[in-house]
Amino acid sequence: MIISNHNPKIKLIRALLGRAKDRREAGAFVVEGVRLVEEAVAANWPMRFVLFDESLSERGKQQVESLMSQGVDVEEVSTSVMKAMSETESPQGILAVLNDFQLPIPESVNFILVPDQIRDPGNLGTLLRSAAATGVQAVIIPPETTDAFSPKVLRSGMGAHFKLPIHSMSWDEIQKQFNGLQVFIADMDGESCWSTNLRQPIILVIGNEADGASESARGMATGKLSIPMAGEVESLNAGIAGSVLMFEVVRQRSNT
Amino acid sequence: MIISNHNPKIKLIRALLGRAKDRREAGAFVVEGVRLVEEAVAANWPMRFVLFDESLSERGKQQVESLMSQGVDVEEVSTSVMKAMSETESPQGILAVLNDFQLPIPESVNFILVPDQIRDPGNLGTLLRSAAATGVQAVIIPPETTDAFSPKVLRSGMGAHFKLPIHSMSWDEIQKQFNGLQVFIADMDGESCWSTNLRQPIILVIGNEADGASESARGMATGKLSIPMAGEVESLNAGIAGSVLMFEVVRQRSNT
Repeated sequence: MIISNHNPKIKLIRALLGRAKDRREAGAFVVEGVRLVEEAVAANWPMRFVLFDESLSERGKQQVESLMSQGVDVEEVSTSVMKAMSETESPQGILAVLNDFQLPIPESVNFILVPDQIRDPGNLGTLLRSAAATGVQAVIIPPETTDAFSPKVLRSGMGAHFKLPIHSMSWDEIQKQFNGLQVFIADMDGESCWSTNLRQPIILVIGNEADGASESARGMATGKLSIPMAGEVESLNAGIAGSVLMFEVVRQRSNT
Repeated sequence: MIISNHNPKIKLIRALLGRAKDRREAGAFVVEGVRLVEEAVAANWPMRFVLFDESLSERGKQQVESLMSQGVDVEEVSTSVMKAMSETESPQGILAVLNDFQLPIPESVNFILVPDQIRDPGNLGTLLRSAAATGVQAVIIPPETTDAFSPKVLRSGMGAHFKLPIHSMSWDEIQKQFNGLQVFIADMDGESCWSTNLRQPIILVIGNEADGASESARGMATGKLSIPMAGEVESLNAGIAGSVLMFEVVRQRSNT
Protein backbone atom coordinates (compact mmCIF):
# COMPACT_ATOMS: atom_id res chain seq x y z
CA MET A 1 0.00 0.00 0.00
CA ILE A 2 1.26 3.48 -0.91
CA ILE A 3 1.20 5.76 2.12
CA SER A 4 3.60 8.52 1.06
CA ASN A 5 2.86 11.55 -1.08
CA HIS A 6 6.48 11.29 -2.28
CA ASN A 7 5.90 8.02 -4.06
CA PRO A 8 6.73 8.51 -7.79
CA LYS A 9 3.24 7.39 -8.89
CA ILE A 10 1.62 9.92 -6.59
CA LYS A 11 3.96 12.65 -7.80
CA LEU A 12 3.13 11.79 -11.41
CA ILE A 13 -0.60 11.98 -10.75
CA ARG A 14 -0.31 15.34 -9.04
CA ALA A 15 1.59 16.66 -12.04
CA LEU A 16 -0.96 15.20 -14.48
CA LEU A 17 -3.86 16.76 -12.56
CA GLY A 18 -2.16 20.12 -12.95
CA ARG A 19 -0.76 21.75 -16.05
CA ALA A 20 -1.35 20.77 -19.68
CA LYS A 21 2.41 21.05 -20.21
CA ASP A 22 3.05 18.30 -17.65
CA ARG A 23 0.47 16.06 -19.32
CA ARG A 24 2.07 16.65 -22.71
CA GLU A 25 5.54 15.84 -21.42
CA ALA A 26 4.37 12.66 -19.72
CA GLY A 27 2.12 11.65 -22.62
CA ALA A 28 -0.59 10.74 -20.14
CA PHE A 29 -3.64 12.00 -18.25
CA VAL A 30 -5.74 11.01 -15.24
CA VAL A 31 -9.38 9.98 -14.92
CA GLU A 32 -11.14 9.78 -11.60
CA GLY A 33 -14.10 7.71 -10.48
CA VAL A 34 -15.63 4.33 -11.26
CA ARG A 35 -17.72 5.52 -14.16
CA LEU A 36 -14.89 7.14 -16.16
CA VAL A 37 -12.55 4.22 -15.50
CA GLU A 38 -15.31 1.89 -16.75
CA GLU A 39 -15.64 3.92 -19.94
CA ALA A 40 -11.88 3.79 -20.48
CA VAL A 41 -11.86 0.01 -20.00
CA ALA A 42 -14.83 -0.42 -22.35
CA ALA A 43 -12.92 1.54 -24.99
CA ASN A 44 -9.74 -0.57 -24.50
CA TRP A 45 -7.87 2.61 -23.72
CA PRO A 46 -4.14 2.08 -22.93
CA MET A 47 -3.74 2.20 -19.16
CA ARG A 48 -0.51 2.81 -17.20
CA PHE A 49 -1.70 2.08 -13.71
CA VAL A 50 -4.66 2.37 -11.36
CA LEU A 51 -4.78 3.46 -7.71
CA PHE A 52 -7.63 2.93 -5.28
CA ASP A 53 -8.32 3.24 -1.56
CA GLU A 54 -10.58 1.47 0.90
CA SER A 55 -13.41 3.99 0.45
CA LEU A 56 -14.10 2.45 -2.98
CA SER A 57 -17.67 1.22 -3.59
CA GLU A 58 -18.57 -2.46 -4.14
CA ARG A 59 -18.92 -1.83 -7.86
CA GLY A 60 -15.49 -0.19 -7.82
CA LYS A 61 -13.92 -3.13 -6.00
CA GLN A 62 -15.23 -5.53 -8.61
CA GLN A 63 -13.72 -3.24 -11.23
CA VAL A 64 -10.35 -3.36 -9.44
CA GLU A 65 -10.42 -7.18 -9.34
CA SER A 66 -11.28 -7.38 -13.00
CA LEU A 67 -8.45 -4.96 -13.89
CA MET A 68 -5.96 -6.99 -11.83
CA SER A 69 -6.99 -10.19 -13.57
CA GLN A 70 -6.33 -8.44 -16.90
CA GLY A 71 -2.78 -7.69 -15.77
CA VAL A 72 -3.23 -3.97 -15.17
CA ASP A 73 -0.87 -2.49 -12.55
CA VAL A 74 -3.25 -1.76 -9.65
CA GLU A 75 -2.15 -0.55 -6.21
CA GLU A 76 -3.91 0.45 -3.04
CA VAL A 77 -3.15 3.83 -1.47
CA SER A 78 -4.00 5.18 1.97
CA THR A 79 -7.13 7.28 2.29
CA SER A 80 -5.10 10.38 3.14
CA VAL A 81 -2.94 9.97 0.02
CA MET A 82 -6.11 9.56 -2.08
CA LYS A 83 -7.64 12.68 -0.56
CA ALA A 84 -4.50 14.70 -1.17
CA MET A 85 -4.52 13.67 -4.84
CA SER A 86 -8.18 13.92 -5.67
CA GLU A 87 -9.44 16.80 -7.77
CA THR A 88 -13.00 16.57 -6.46
CA GLU A 89 -14.36 17.33 -3.02
CA SER A 90 -15.69 13.81 -2.61
CA PRO A 91 -13.12 11.41 -4.08
CA GLN A 92 -14.61 8.25 -5.52
CA GLY A 93 -11.75 6.03 -4.38
CA ILE A 94 -10.25 5.23 -7.78
CA LEU A 95 -7.90 6.97 -10.23
CA ALA A 96 -6.37 5.71 -13.46
CA VAL A 97 -3.39 7.06 -15.37
CA LEU A 98 -4.07 6.63 -19.08
CA ASN A 99 -1.70 7.04 -21.99
CA ASP A 100 -2.34 9.66 -24.63
CA PHE A 101 -4.04 7.92 -27.49
CA GLN A 102 -6.05 9.19 -30.44
CA LEU A 103 -8.91 7.42 -32.09
CA PRO A 104 -8.37 7.80 -35.85
CA ILE A 105 -10.33 10.34 -37.87
CA PRO A 106 -12.49 8.49 -40.45
CA GLU A 107 -11.33 8.83 -44.07
CA SER A 108 -14.55 10.31 -45.29
CA VAL A 109 -16.05 12.87 -42.94
CA ASN A 110 -19.14 15.05 -43.04
CA PHE A 111 -19.43 16.40 -39.48
CA ILE A 112 -16.46 17.93 -37.63
CA LEU A 113 -16.59 20.10 -34.52
CA VAL A 114 -14.01 22.79 -33.74
CA PRO A 115 -14.41 24.33 -30.25
CA ASP A 116 -12.66 27.65 -30.85
CA GLN A 117 -11.11 29.77 -28.06
CA ILE A 118 -13.09 27.76 -25.50
CA ARG A 119 -11.32 28.40 -22.21
CA ASP A 120 -13.92 27.17 -19.76
CA PRO A 121 -13.36 23.44 -19.11
CA GLY A 122 -17.03 22.84 -18.27
CA ASN A 123 -18.12 24.28 -21.61
CA LEU A 124 -15.56 22.20 -23.50
CA GLY A 125 -16.69 19.04 -21.68
CA THR A 126 -20.31 19.80 -22.54
CA LEU A 127 -19.40 20.29 -26.20
CA LEU A 128 -17.55 16.96 -26.26
CA ARG A 129 -20.47 15.16 -24.63
CA SER A 130 -22.96 16.59 -27.10
CA ALA A 131 -20.56 15.82 -29.97
CA ALA A 132 -20.55 12.17 -28.92
CA ALA A 133 -24.36 12.21 -28.74
CA THR A 134 -24.80 13.73 -32.18
CA GLY A 135 -22.41 11.57 -34.17
CA VAL A 136 -19.69 14.18 -34.68
CA GLN A 137 -16.87 12.22 -36.36
CA ALA A 138 -13.94 14.17 -34.94
CA VAL A 139 -13.33 17.10 -32.62
CA ILE A 140 -10.40 19.29 -33.57
CA ILE A 141 -8.83 21.40 -30.84
CA PRO A 142 -7.15 24.55 -32.19
CA PRO A 143 -4.29 26.19 -30.27
CA GLU A 144 -6.41 28.78 -28.41
CA THR A 145 -8.72 26.23 -26.75
CA THR A 146 -8.13 24.79 -23.29
CA ASP A 147 -6.59 21.31 -22.97
CA ALA A 148 -9.28 18.68 -23.58
CA PHE A 149 -7.63 16.23 -21.17
CA SER A 150 -7.64 18.34 -18.02
CA PRO A 151 -9.51 16.82 -15.06
CA LYS A 152 -12.48 19.20 -15.36
CA VAL A 153 -12.99 18.64 -19.07
CA LEU A 154 -12.77 14.87 -18.57
CA ARG A 155 -15.31 15.08 -15.76
CA SER A 156 -17.86 17.10 -17.67
CA GLY A 157 -17.26 15.08 -20.84
CA MET A 158 -18.69 12.03 -19.04
CA GLY A 159 -16.82 9.50 -21.17
CA ALA A 160 -17.06 11.29 -24.51
CA HIS A 161 -13.24 11.35 -24.60
CA PHE A 162 -13.20 7.57 -25.13
CA LYS A 163 -15.70 7.59 -28.00
CA LEU A 164 -14.58 10.53 -30.10
CA PRO A 165 -11.42 11.19 -32.12
CA ILE A 166 -10.03 14.33 -30.43
CA HIS A 167 -7.04 15.83 -32.26
CA SER A 168 -5.09 19.03 -31.72
CA MET A 169 -4.30 20.93 -34.91
CA SER A 170 -3.22 24.36 -36.09
CA TRP A 171 -5.65 26.25 -38.30
CA ASP A 172 -3.40 25.56 -41.29
CA GLU A 173 -3.62 21.85 -40.61
CA ILE A 174 -7.39 22.05 -40.23
CA GLN A 175 -7.67 23.80 -43.57
CA LYS A 176 -5.46 21.23 -45.29
CA GLN A 177 -7.01 18.13 -43.73
CA PHE A 178 -10.63 19.10 -44.29
CA ASN A 179 -10.36 20.94 -47.56
CA GLY A 180 -13.74 20.89 -49.31
CA LEU A 181 -15.99 20.91 -46.27
CA GLN A 182 -18.23 23.89 -45.61
CA VAL A 183 -17.02 25.82 -42.56
CA PHE A 184 -19.85 27.30 -40.50
CA ILE A 185 -19.12 29.46 -37.49
CA ALA A 186 -21.72 30.09 -34.83
CA ASP A 187 -22.41 33.83 -34.90
CA MET A 188 -25.32 35.94 -33.76
CA ASP A 189 -25.36 37.77 -37.08
CA GLY A 190 -25.46 34.58 -39.12
CA GLU A 191 -28.21 32.89 -41.10
CA SER A 192 -30.83 31.00 -39.09
CA CYS A 193 -29.57 27.47 -38.43
CA TRP A 194 -33.08 26.24 -39.24
CA SER A 195 -33.01 27.48 -42.79
CA THR A 196 -29.36 26.69 -43.57
CA ASN A 197 -28.59 23.41 -45.29
CA LEU A 198 -26.64 21.37 -42.74
CA ARG A 199 -26.90 18.11 -44.68
CA GLN A 200 -23.78 18.95 -46.64
CA PRO A 201 -20.39 17.98 -45.12
CA ILE A 202 -19.54 20.63 -42.52
CA ILE A 203 -17.05 21.83 -39.97
CA LEU A 204 -18.95 23.51 -37.14
CA VAL A 205 -16.90 26.14 -35.31
CA ILE A 206 -18.16 27.20 -31.88
CA GLY A 207 -16.43 30.26 -30.42
CA ASN A 208 -16.52 31.45 -26.83
CA GLU A 209 -19.38 33.49 -25.45
CA ALA A 210 -17.48 36.73 -24.98
CA ASP A 211 -15.45 36.95 -28.18
CA GLY A 212 -17.07 34.57 -30.65
CA ALA A 213 -14.86 32.78 -33.15
CA SER A 214 -11.20 33.64 -33.75
CA GLU A 215 -9.82 35.59 -36.70
CA SER A 216 -8.37 32.34 -38.09
CA ALA A 217 -11.78 30.70 -38.01
CA ARG A 218 -13.42 33.72 -39.61
CA GLY A 219 -10.85 33.60 -42.37
CA MET A 220 -11.81 30.02 -43.19
CA ALA A 221 -15.57 30.39 -42.76
CA THR A 222 -17.86 29.76 -45.71
CA GLY A 223 -20.93 30.73 -43.70
CA LYS A 224 -22.26 31.95 -40.36
CA LEU A 225 -25.00 30.25 -38.38
CA SER A 226 -27.24 31.79 -35.74
CA ILE A 227 -29.79 30.35 -33.35
CA PRO A 228 -32.93 32.49 -33.51
CA MET A 229 -34.04 33.60 -30.04
CA ALA A 230 -37.59 34.19 -28.92
CA GLY A 231 -36.72 36.03 -25.71
CA GLU A 232 -34.77 39.05 -24.55
CA VAL A 233 -31.49 37.25 -23.97
CA GLU A 234 -28.62 38.21 -26.26
CA SER A 235 -26.33 35.24 -25.94
CA LEU A 236 -26.02 31.63 -24.86
CA ASN A 237 -22.95 29.98 -23.45
CA ALA A 238 -20.80 28.01 -25.85
CA GLY A 239 -21.87 24.64 -24.43
CA ILE A 240 -25.55 25.33 -25.00
CA ALA A 241 -25.23 27.11 -28.34
CA GLY A 242 -22.99 24.35 -29.69
CA SER A 243 -25.32 21.61 -28.47
CA VAL A 244 -28.39 23.20 -30.02
CA LEU A 245 -26.54 23.52 -33.35
CA MET A 246 -25.20 19.94 -33.27
CA PHE A 247 -28.68 18.55 -32.65
CA GLU A 248 -30.01 20.70 -35.49
CA VAL A 249 -27.53 18.92 -37.77
CA VAL A 250 -28.91 15.56 -36.57
CA ARG A 251 -32.48 16.76 -37.11
CA GLN A 252 -31.87 17.90 -40.66
CA ARG A 253 -29.95 14.77 -41.57
CA SER A 254 -32.58 12.45 -40.10
CA ASN A 255 -35.26 14.00 -42.34
CA THR A 256 -33.84 12.80 -45.64
CA MET B 1 -17.43 52.05 5.98
CA ILE B 2 -18.33 48.63 7.38
CA ILE B 3 -15.26 46.85 8.71
CA SER B 4 -16.81 44.24 11.02
CA ASN B 5 -18.19 40.85 10.07
CA HIS B 6 -20.65 41.28 12.96
CA ASN B 7 -22.44 44.17 11.29
CA PRO B 8 -26.14 43.19 10.84
CA LYS B 9 -26.03 43.74 7.07
CA ILE B 10 -23.03 41.44 6.76
CA LYS B 11 -24.70 38.82 8.93
CA LEU B 12 -27.85 39.01 6.78
CA ILE B 13 -25.84 38.53 3.58
CA ARG B 14 -24.00 35.54 4.96
CA ALA B 15 -27.32 33.96 5.89
CA LEU B 16 -28.84 34.74 2.46
CA LEU B 17 -25.83 33.22 0.68
CA GLY B 18 -26.44 30.02 2.63
CA ARG B 19 -29.66 28.10 3.11
CA ALA B 20 -32.90 28.44 1.16
CA LYS B 21 -34.73 28.48 4.51
CA ASP B 22 -32.89 31.64 5.55
CA ARG B 23 -33.74 33.28 2.23
CA ARG B 24 -37.40 32.37 2.64
CA GLU B 25 -37.56 33.74 6.16
CA ALA B 26 -35.88 36.99 5.17
CA GLY B 27 -37.87 37.30 1.94
CA ALA B 28 -34.69 38.28 0.15
CA PHE B 29 -31.69 37.02 -1.83
CA VAL B 30 -28.26 38.26 -2.89
CA VAL B 31 -26.75 38.93 -6.29
CA GLU B 32 -23.07 39.44 -6.81
CA GLY B 33 -21.18 41.35 -9.49
CA VAL B 34 -21.70 44.39 -11.68
CA ARG B 35 -23.51 42.52 -14.44
CA LEU B 36 -26.21 40.92 -12.26
CA VAL B 37 -26.75 44.15 -10.31
CA GLU B 38 -27.17 45.94 -13.65
CA GLU B 39 -29.78 43.41 -14.75
CA ALA B 40 -31.66 43.87 -11.48
CA VAL B 41 -31.64 47.66 -11.87
CA ALA B 42 -32.77 47.39 -15.50
CA ALA B 43 -35.70 45.26 -14.34
CA ASN B 44 -36.63 47.74 -11.57
CA TRP B 45 -36.25 44.94 -9.07
CA PRO B 46 -36.91 46.00 -5.43
CA MET B 47 -33.55 46.50 -3.74
CA ARG B 48 -32.85 46.55 0.01
CA PHE B 49 -29.26 47.67 0.01
CA VAL B 50 -25.99 47.46 -1.88
CA LEU B 51 -22.45 46.94 -0.56
CA PHE B 52 -19.23 47.54 -2.45
CA ASP B 53 -15.50 47.74 -1.77
CA GLU B 54 -12.60 49.63 -3.28
CA SER B 55 -11.71 46.80 -5.66
CA LEU B 56 -14.80 47.69 -7.73
CA SER B 57 -14.20 48.44 -11.43
CA GLU B 58 -14.78 51.88 -13.01
CA ARG B 59 -18.04 50.63 -14.52
CA GLY B 60 -19.06 49.38 -11.07
CA LYS B 61 -18.26 52.72 -9.45
CA GLN B 62 -20.47 54.53 -11.94
CA GLN B 63 -23.21 52.04 -11.09
CA VAL B 64 -22.78 52.80 -7.37
CA GLU B 65 -23.08 56.55 -8.00
CA SER B 66 -26.18 56.08 -10.06
CA LEU B 67 -27.76 53.85 -7.39
CA MET B 68 -26.99 56.43 -4.68
CA SER B 69 -28.57 59.19 -6.74
CA GLN B 70 -31.70 57.04 -6.98
CA GLY B 71 -31.85 56.85 -3.20
CA VAL B 72 -30.73 53.23 -2.85
CA ASP B 73 -28.99 52.43 0.47
CA VAL B 74 -25.36 51.92 -0.63
CA GLU B 75 -22.46 51.39 1.77
CA GLU B 76 -18.76 50.72 1.38
CA VAL B 77 -17.21 47.74 3.15
CA SER B 78 -13.58 46.87 3.76
CA THR B 79 -11.92 44.51 1.30
CA SER B 80 -11.54 41.84 3.96
CA VAL B 81 -15.26 41.96 4.81
CA MET B 82 -16.10 41.70 1.08
CA LYS B 83 -13.78 38.72 0.69
CA ALA B 84 -15.27 36.96 3.70
CA MET B 85 -18.78 37.36 2.25
CA SER B 86 -18.19 36.63 -1.40
CA GLU B 87 -19.38 33.33 -2.84
CA THR B 88 -16.89 33.40 -5.70
CA GLU B 89 -13.15 33.05 -5.68
CA SER B 90 -12.68 36.43 -7.29
CA PRO B 91 -15.23 38.84 -5.79
CA GLN B 92 -16.36 41.56 -8.17
CA GLY B 93 -16.56 44.19 -5.47
CA ILE B 94 -20.34 44.62 -5.38
CA LEU B 95 -23.26 42.77 -3.77
CA ALA B 96 -26.95 43.66 -3.67
CA VAL B 97 -29.66 42.35 -1.37
CA LEU B 98 -32.90 42.13 -3.34
CA ASN B 99 -36.41 41.51 -2.09
CA ASP B 100 -38.34 38.47 -3.17
CA PHE B 101 -40.56 39.53 -6.01
CA GLN B 102 -42.41 37.62 -8.69
CA LEU B 103 -43.08 38.80 -12.17
CA PRO B 104 -46.72 37.90 -12.93
CA ILE B 105 -47.61 34.89 -15.04
CA PRO B 106 -49.41 36.08 -18.21
CA GLU B 107 -53.15 35.29 -18.36
CA SER B 108 -52.94 33.32 -21.52
CA VAL B 109 -49.94 31.02 -21.69
CA ASN B 110 -48.69 28.54 -24.25
CA PHE B 111 -45.14 27.73 -23.08
CA ILE B 112 -44.34 26.82 -19.46
CA LEU B 113 -41.18 25.17 -18.18
CA VAL B 114 -41.10 22.91 -15.10
CA PRO B 115 -37.57 21.91 -14.01
CA ASP B 116 -38.40 18.72 -12.09
CA GLN B 117 -36.14 17.25 -9.38
CA ILE B 118 -33.28 19.41 -10.64
CA ARG B 119 -30.80 19.48 -7.77
CA ASP B 120 -27.73 20.79 -9.52
CA PRO B 121 -27.72 24.62 -9.34
CA GLY B 122 -25.68 24.95 -12.54
CA ASN B 123 -28.23 22.90 -14.48
CA LEU B 124 -31.13 24.92 -13.09
CA GLY B 125 -29.37 28.18 -13.98
CA THR B 126 -28.77 26.92 -17.52
CA LEU B 127 -32.44 25.97 -17.88
CA LEU B 128 -33.52 29.44 -16.70
CA ARG B 129 -31.15 31.14 -19.10
CA SER B 130 -32.38 29.08 -22.04
CA ALA B 131 -35.98 29.64 -20.93
CA ALA B 132 -35.41 33.40 -21.12
CA ALA B 133 -33.85 32.97 -24.57
CA THR B 134 -36.73 30.90 -25.94
CA GLY B 135 -39.67 32.97 -24.76
CA VAL B 136 -40.85 30.62 -22.00
CA GLN B 137 -43.64 32.58 -20.27
CA ALA B 138 -43.17 31.20 -16.78
CA VAL B 139 -40.91 28.76 -14.95
CA ILE B 140 -42.64 26.76 -12.24
CA ILE B 141 -40.44 25.28 -9.50
CA PRO B 142 -41.97 22.15 -7.92
CA PRO B 143 -41.05 21.12 -4.37
CA GLU B 144 -38.27 18.66 -5.30
CA THR B 145 -36.19 21.18 -7.26
CA THR B 146 -33.35 23.20 -5.74
CA ASP B 147 -33.98 26.83 -4.74
CA ALA B 148 -33.86 29.02 -7.85
CA PHE B 149 -32.49 31.98 -5.87
CA SER B 150 -29.34 30.40 -4.47
CA PRO B 151 -26.08 32.16 -5.42
CA LYS B 152 -25.04 29.47 -7.89
CA VAL B 153 -28.35 29.39 -9.73
CA LEU B 154 -28.36 33.19 -9.94
CA ARG B 155 -24.82 33.15 -11.29
CA SER B 156 -25.44 30.59 -13.99
CA GLY B 157 -28.83 32.15 -14.83
CA MET B 158 -26.95 35.27 -16.01
CA GLY B 159 -29.87 37.62 -15.42
CA ALA B 160 -32.71 35.31 -16.51
CA HIS B 161 -34.17 35.66 -12.99
CA PHE B 162 -35.07 39.27 -13.72
CA LYS B 163 -36.82 38.55 -17.02
CA LEU B 164 -38.87 35.46 -16.26
CA PRO B 165 -41.80 34.84 -13.93
CA ILE B 166 -40.39 32.16 -11.57
CA HIS B 167 -43.02 30.72 -9.22
CA SER B 168 -42.87 27.87 -6.71
CA MET B 169 -45.92 25.58 -6.79
CA SER B 170 -47.02 22.14 -5.68
CA TRP B 171 -47.99 19.67 -8.40
CA ASP B 172 -51.65 20.14 -7.46
CA GLU B 173 -51.35 23.86 -7.99
CA ILE B 174 -49.59 23.32 -11.32
CA GLN B 175 -52.42 21.05 -12.46
CA LYS B 176 -55.08 23.54 -11.41
CA GLN B 177 -53.41 26.65 -12.78
CA PHE B 178 -52.48 25.23 -16.18
CA ASN B 179 -55.41 22.95 -16.77
CA GLY B 180 -55.83 22.37 -20.50
CA LEU B 181 -52.18 22.60 -21.54
CA GLN B 182 -50.43 19.54 -22.93
CA VAL B 183 -47.84 18.25 -20.46
CA PHE B 184 -44.75 16.82 -22.14
CA ILE B 185 -42.01 15.24 -20.09
CA ALA B 186 -38.53 14.76 -21.49
CA ASP B 187 -37.95 10.99 -21.56
CA MET B 188 -35.59 8.79 -23.53
CA ASP B 189 -38.48 6.47 -24.46
CA GLY B 190 -40.67 9.29 -25.73
CA GLU B 191 -41.68 10.35 -29.23
CA SER B 192 -39.10 12.23 -31.24
CA CYS B 193 -39.31 15.94 -30.39
CA TRP B 194 -38.92 16.65 -34.11
CA SER B 195 -42.11 14.88 -35.08
CA THR B 196 -44.23 15.95 -32.10
CA ASN B 197 -46.45 18.98 -32.49
CA LEU B 198 -45.01 21.57 -30.12
CA ARG B 199 -47.06 24.45 -31.53
CA GLN B 200 -49.91 23.65 -29.19
CA PRO B 201 -49.84 25.19 -25.68
CA ILE B 202 -47.45 23.09 -23.58
CA ILE B 203 -45.88 22.56 -20.22
CA LEU B 204 -42.38 21.16 -20.75
CA VAL B 205 -41.16 19.08 -17.80
CA ILE B 206 -37.40 18.45 -17.61
CA GLY B 207 -36.35 15.84 -15.03
CA ASN B 208 -32.87 15.21 -13.70
CA GLU B 209 -30.34 13.12 -15.55
CA ALA B 210 -30.24 10.20 -13.13
CA ASP B 211 -33.93 9.72 -12.31
CA GLY B 212 -35.86 11.50 -15.05
CA ALA B 213 -39.17 13.10 -14.15
CA SER B 214 -40.96 12.53 -10.82
CA GLU B 215 -44.00 10.31 -10.26
CA SER B 216 -46.15 13.42 -9.91
CA ALA B 217 -45.02 14.71 -13.29
CA ARG B 218 -45.58 11.31 -14.90
CA GLY B 219 -49.09 11.27 -13.47
CA MET B 220 -49.88 14.56 -15.21
CA ALA B 221 -48.08 13.88 -18.48
CA THR B 222 -50.04 13.80 -21.70
CA GLY B 223 -46.96 12.84 -23.71
CA LYS B 224 -43.26 12.02 -23.59
CA LEU B 225 -40.61 13.71 -25.72
CA SER B 226 -37.20 12.36 -26.64
CA ILE B 227 -34.22 13.88 -28.40
CA PRO B 228 -33.00 11.43 -31.04
CA MET B 229 -29.27 10.76 -30.70
CA ALA B 230 -26.89 9.96 -33.52
CA GLY B 231 -24.05 8.73 -31.33
CA GLU B 232 -23.34 6.15 -28.65
CA VAL B 233 -24.18 8.36 -25.68
CA GLU B 234 -27.24 7.38 -23.65
CA SER B 235 -28.09 10.59 -21.87
CA LEU B 236 -27.59 14.35 -21.79
CA ASN B 237 -27.56 16.50 -18.71
CA ALA B 238 -30.77 18.30 -17.86
CA GLY B 239 -29.44 21.71 -18.88
CA ILE B 240 -28.55 20.55 -22.38
CA ALA B 241 -31.58 18.31 -22.94
CA GLY B 242 -33.94 21.06 -21.77
CA SER B 243 -32.25 23.69 -23.92
CA VAL B 244 -32.40 21.56 -27.07
CA LEU B 245 -36.13 20.93 -26.45
CA MET B 246 -36.92 24.59 -25.73
CA PHE B 247 -35.22 25.68 -28.96
CA GLU B 248 -37.14 22.99 -30.84
CA VAL B 249 -40.35 24.65 -29.61
CA VAL B 250 -39.09 27.99 -30.99
CA ARG B 251 -38.16 26.34 -34.28
CA GLN B 252 -41.56 24.75 -34.78
CA ARG B 253 -43.44 27.90 -33.81
CA SER B 254 -41.34 30.10 -36.07
CA ASN B 255 -42.32 27.97 -39.08
CA THR B 256 -46.01 28.81 -39.11
